[in-house]
Amino acid sequence: MAEVVRNKRVVLRNYVTGFPKESDMEIVEGTITLKVPEGSKEVLLKNLYLSCDPFMRNLMNKPQGTETSSGLNYTSGSAIGGFGVSKVIDSGSPDYKYGDLVWGLTKWEEYSLVPSSQIISKIQHTDGVPLSYYTGILGMPGVTAYAGLFEVGSLQKGERVFVSAASGAVDLLKNKFGFDEGFNYKEEPDLNAALKRYFPEGIDVYFENVGGKTLDAVLLNMRVQGRIPACGMISQYNLTQPEGVTNLANIVYKKIRMQGFHFFDYVNLYPKFLEFVLSHLKEGKIVYVEDIAEGLENGPAALVGLFSGRNFGKQVLLVAPE
Amino acid sequence: MAEVVRNKRVVLRNYVTGFPKESDMEIVEGTITLKVPEGSKEVLLKNLYLSCDPFMRNLMNKPQGTETSSGLNYTSGSAIGGFGVSKVIDSGSPDYKYGDLVWGLTKWEEYSLVPSSQIISKIQHTDGVPLSYYTGILGMPGVTAYAGLFEVGSLQKGERVFVSAASGAVDLLKNKFGFDEGFNYKEEPDLNAALKRYFPEGIDVYFENVGGKTLDAVLLNMRVQGRIPACGMISQYNLTQPEGVTNLANIVYKKIRMQGFHFFDYVNLYPKFLEFVLSHLKEGKIVYVEDIAEGLENGPAALVGLFSGRNFGKQVLLVAPE
Repeated sequence: MAEVVRNKRVVLRNYVTGFPKESDMEIVEGTITLKVPEGSKEVLLKNLYLSCDPFMRNLMNKPQGTETSSGLNYTSGSAIGGFGVSKVIDSGSPDYKYGDLVWGLTKWEEYSLVPSSQIISKIQHTDGVPLSYYTGILGMPGVTAYAGLFEVGSLQKGERVFVSAASGAVDLLKNKFGFDEGFNYKEEPDLNAALKRYFPEGIDVYFENVGGKTLDAVLLNMRVQGRIPACGMISQYNLTQPEGVTNLANIVYKKIRMQGFHFFDYVNLYPKFLEFVLSHLKEGKIVYVEDIAEGLENGPAALVGLFSGRNFGKQVLLVAPE
Repeated sequence: MAEVVRNKRVVLRNYVTGFPKESDMEIVEGTITLKVPEGSKEVLLKNLYLSCDPFMRNLMNKPQGTETSSGLNYTSGSAIGGFGVSKVIDSGSPDYKYGDLVWGLTKWEEYSLVPSSQIISKIQHTDGVPLSYYTGILGMPGVTAYAGLFEVGSLQKGERVFVSAASGAVDLLKNKFGFDEGFNYKEEPDLNAALKRYFPEGIDVYFENVGGKTLDAVLLNMRVQGRIPACGMISQYNLTQPEGVTNLANIVYKKIRMQGFHFFDYVNLYPKFLEFVLSHLKEGKIVYVEDIAEGLENGPAALVGLFSGRNFGKQVLLVAPE
């Protein structure tokens, strides 16, 4: 007979407007049967690491009914979801079996029953690579960075790249991550002047995470035929009235290509991506830093902290050790 | 000995801020020797038709010294320039000879001495095709539309297209040009609602000529993976403070590609384009309307009229009959 166990969840209490607060979520305890229902093709996961990602803010909005979105929006009163690393406990799918380590879309709870289509990949490379990396550099954010720079952004050797929301202390960016330069936008009263200082010859590729005033200043500093891969506009998510961007005519003048993209359209790159990044990690050419919070109880604070820049490095939530 | 003749010119009197006025230009009479100077490789043109195009407004701005632009900006006190159809009177270039009809960049004057590199093409097809068409449908605007829709916009059969600044009366657009629908933005208090009415399933390709509020409303009505080829933002050219565009996050949500482009990067398409458009014109599948003003004296009014929508059809200035 199948074991029934406690299942703690992070639940959305209210739809969010403006900045999310810890109190918009709550911890709820329920139970779960550790077995996939008879005839179901779903997979039962034990969640190990959960990823805190800015896109989750959008899913906290009250659905408008007019979205062309993924339909992933959270429902008030049920567990929030996102990317995570999990262990398969039971499987109705022939592709997965007990003990498999996987990453993909799961829920913010101890155990989740999910369609197998939500699993993005089995995790094969664990020698010397922390499992938590599959929430970040080896997971969705890593593929997004890779696809954005090389596929959408057509980055060429020698080009000048600006990444907004690099999310780290400036000395960390320069001394540890190997960026040529970095600055804290909060300390720059004139973003246009800051960009002119750091990019006297202009920017070829702007990896857009921010939108609003940052985008406006960047547009003034793009080079002809520059590219702007855009996978997020974090500065706008918490605003009821988004900031107006006034310098868009530069897209025409400078023949700029700005392109929105989603991780899911580039999942097919994963094997090629993984080979590329694992070798760079092993050679020390990519340095990676995590900020790990522990326990579902600390999930809401970790998630909310993204929007005030509280984390240094990738914000992860440890739910259970392997 | 070479003939010296009168040469009337349209000269920029002052750099322009805001809407251009007729009085920002003046007609000046000078003379010109109808012979290319000894040793020069330039070409002497008799200008027949000049094209009134919105981009010319940008060239009337006082140069800021920081432009990454073409360097074409007009100089206060000298003749303005643009696209035109001309006859070769004398040539220092082996590629052109007396009597050739050509189109390309020339000056707003009776005769112009220009580098041969400013000529874009000799005109071969004059049977049944008015020469003035090479300022419009068979010239720069035609290539721009073709490149924008098919190359930059990747237009596919069956997709939904919105063109702003189609510049004609609505009944002209529908009954003569064969558009499915058309509306006058000045009569629509809510552009978003107008677009929802005409595009209940959303827009695949938005041919961007306007920017500002129109772009903002379009972004709300684009379909997933829509494209926005952008070759102008006429609504912004006369503003000292451009309008803010607030709905750019849709570029991310809907994976939209917005791409600025210039005609000059697509000149190599010209032979293919010409074959395509000439056959469509002959079969009556493309209908074309011109609004022809006569005489250089009427040039300033014709050009200024573009910005208040005074013209119906392509605004051309007849300088001299062939």
